[in-house]
Amino acid sequence: MPLLIERTDPVVHLEFGHGKANEIGRSELVELEHLIDELERSDARLLVSFSRKRTSRGTPIFVAGANVAERADWSTDEVRQHVQWQRRVLARLRHIPQFHVALVSGAALGWGLEFLIACDSRIATPEATFALPETGLGIVPGAGGTSELQSLIGLPQALRLGALGETIDAAEALRIGLVQEVVCDLEQAMLRVDRIRDRLLANSPTAVAAFKDACLRSPGLSYADRSALEARAYELCLDSGEAQLGREHFEDLRKGIAVPWQPRVRPRW
Amino acid sequence: MPLLIERTDPVVHLEFGHGKANEIGRSELVELEHLIDELERSDARLLVSFSRKRTSRGTPIFVAGANVAERADWSTDEVRQHVQWQRRVLARLRHIPQFHVALVSGAALGWGLEFLIACDSRIATPEATFALPETGLGIVPGAGGTSELQSLIGLPQALRLGALGETIDAAEALRIGLVQEVVCDLEQAMLRVDRIRDRLLANSPTAVAAFKDACLRSPGLSYADRSALEARAYELCLDSGEAQLGREHFEDLRKGIAVPWQPRVRPRW
Amino acid sequence: MPLLIERTDPVVHLEFGHGKANEIGRSELVELEHLIDELERSDARLLVSFSRKRTSRGTPIFVAGANVAERADWSTDEVRQHVQWQRRVLARLRHIPQFHVALVSGAALGWGLEFLIACDSRIATPEATFALPETGLGIVPGAGGTSELQSLIGLPQALRLGALGETIDAAEALRIGLVQEVVCDLEQAMLRVDRIRDRLLANSPTAVAAFKDACLRSPGLSYADRSALEARAYELCLDSGEAQLGREHFEDLRKGIAVPWQPRVRPRW
Repeated sequence: MPLLIERTDPVVHLEFGHGKANEIGRSELVELEHLIDELERSDARLLVSFSRKRTSRGTPIFVAGANVAERADWSTDEVRQHVQWQRRVLARLRHIPQFHVALVSGAALGWGLEFLIACDSRIATPEATFALPETGLGIVPGAGGTSELQSLIGLPQALRLGALGETIDAAEALRIGLVQEVVCDLEQAMLRVDRIRDRLLANSPTAVAAFKDACLRSPGLSYADRSALEARAYELCLDSGEAQLGREHFEDLRKGIAVPWQPRVRPRW
Repeated sequence: MPLLIERTDPVVHLEFGHGKANEIGRSELVELEHLIDELERSDARLLVSFSRKRTSRGTPIFVAGANVAERADWSTDEVRQHVQWQRRVLARLRHIPQFHVALVSGAALGWGLEFLIACDSRIATPEATFALPETGLGIVPGAGGTSELQSLIGLPQALRLGALGETIDAAEALRIGLVQEVVCDLEQAMLRVDRIRDRLLANSPTAVAAFKDACLRSPGLSYADRSALEARAYELCLDSGEAQLGREHFEDLRKGIAVPWQPRVRPRW
Repeated sequence: MPLLIERTDPVVHLEFGHGKANEIGRSELVELEHLIDELERSDARLLVSFSRKRTSRGTPIFVAGANVAERADWSTDEVRQHVQWQRRVLARLRHIPQFHVALVSGAALGWGLEFLIACDSRIATPEATFALPETGLGIVPGAGGTSELQSLIGLPQALRLGALGETIDAAEALRIGLVQEVVCDLEQAMLRVDRIRDRLLANSPTAVAAFKDACLRSPGLSYADRSALEARAYELCLDSGEAQLGREHFEDLRKGIAVPWQPRVRPRW
């Protein structure tokens, strides 16, 4: 089982640590789909993705890209189908109801960088590096790196990474918004994750998922449609009873007493 | 009258200073609607929103959120209607023809932060703080904080504020683009506002409003529609005679002589 | 011939250096259209735009705006037609298959700043300045400065430049994302361009153009449409044979041996 998955309620840890450099191929995509199936039904609050992998030469790796070796004798049509599958998996991962933090302490290349687009927050260490080498291989990033990257870092930086194929480090990734924080090492990143977990536990699972869902669906919509989406997210909080629960415990909240939120109710739209 | 409104042509000042922490309830929304009615017909050039409020404990406040106390015995349907009203008021405020600057020298929480999304520029002092506590109350930000916030600060920071409910300070707000400037205190902010006013007075009121209007309507449109919008904004400048006035006074402009711009003509689309 | 165009395969240099301050009028637009015609069919990889112009007083100029003098006795309808032409030219320039870098070492005003929106990357020197003076002339930026600027620098900074007409320097332009790099002088900028050229030469011309094209067309589309666009960009890489070429030379790439990419195949959609 190439992906190491550990469930420590309310957190699920996904650790990459297989092959030479955590290359993602058919078997990893199958496992990732199973994990997404599980998360969509789970009451877990936080997914944390990370890697402690190093290559035989000692280079730290997050995910070094897709498994190109397994494609050696594939037909063009098989490649086409596979890339569409890669894209579908990351599109589903983008919409899990959990908050998803990636801790990047090694090379995030190609699909590894596209995986980061599908997270909610990214924390890097100084050992992290980032690149989209695809155009140097005669292809384009096919799992969101072409169409979704600019929503994260803007058009000029997307063109720099994708058209030029430049490699950037953690500090530059922070400057352009590809990561949200830089900490000194993976241990510090895990401490930061503990604080994120505590914040999530204080919040309504239904409200957090409704907020995330509406944020993700807004780009590309008209103002009227974005507004309708926000209204529906609010309605879900009212109809699920979470808003009522919040009002009833308003005084408790001020005293630091946790609200007994209900299990997550997910939007049906 | 909870909202303090002062008209010193060409500037309108809106000062929050009521209740415990400038909570916005029914009566404040009514007054805000009256102010918007006035501004839509007014030749004023600049709206400046600010607060000098402190809580009884001395905490500086911009707007600490919606008035939750008044909702104690409201039905779910009354809450729903009220939140839709909050959203409509801020959507109208977003489109006033004046340039709107908020000076934030205290806590901007919940609706207080959503109010900032509806401004054109935000200047903070080191005493400012920013947070969306909604998901910790079982709801989502319902007046633009879910659907519009990412257009200001991007998706990752919107998820951080809305899903995690983290509080950030002025320096971090500047870094992520939630505010555009940080100055040392409210007095310095007012001096900065004077320079903004002087710049606006040098520009055509019609051209400024047409520019703002087209910028606000562009997101979510196709290139062809964005381009048509820009063309119509330009046409308004031609048809209103402002472009002609600008060309006639081109030499005056170089000498620093003010152009006698006409009263604002607003787009009819 | 006002525009100085130099072809040093695989780079095309476009140098502005005419009139008092590189004002762009009818004759320059005609030449720019001819250059775009050429670039759309050319195998060149990189367009570099720059200027060494100084005014008679020594002020460094990139492009100081449109040629307003030639419009002195134009009818309103002639102005309207001309501005639409300006917009069409920059929209076509935005989509050339080459990577386009602008080196800005002087004033980029009005149309000069709109030209920058149509580039892929912008490198400034400390002598660069940036402003949209249009609203002070009774008009709005009509060649993309109203509808497209915020995709580069966000809404608040677009409103600042366009509604207030403030002038900013290279450091501030870097902070807000209007330029991607600041170097000490034009000579250093040219060295940076050499590295960009080398990166482009290592990449598939077809893949780079497909990536750029899909990035440019994504904003304003739904997720499904953005995803379909990315899929088509990938298909072009498969159907053109570039992906196959990349796989065949995978081991060469690791050894630093250049892949013999084919001449650029352009998307037909």
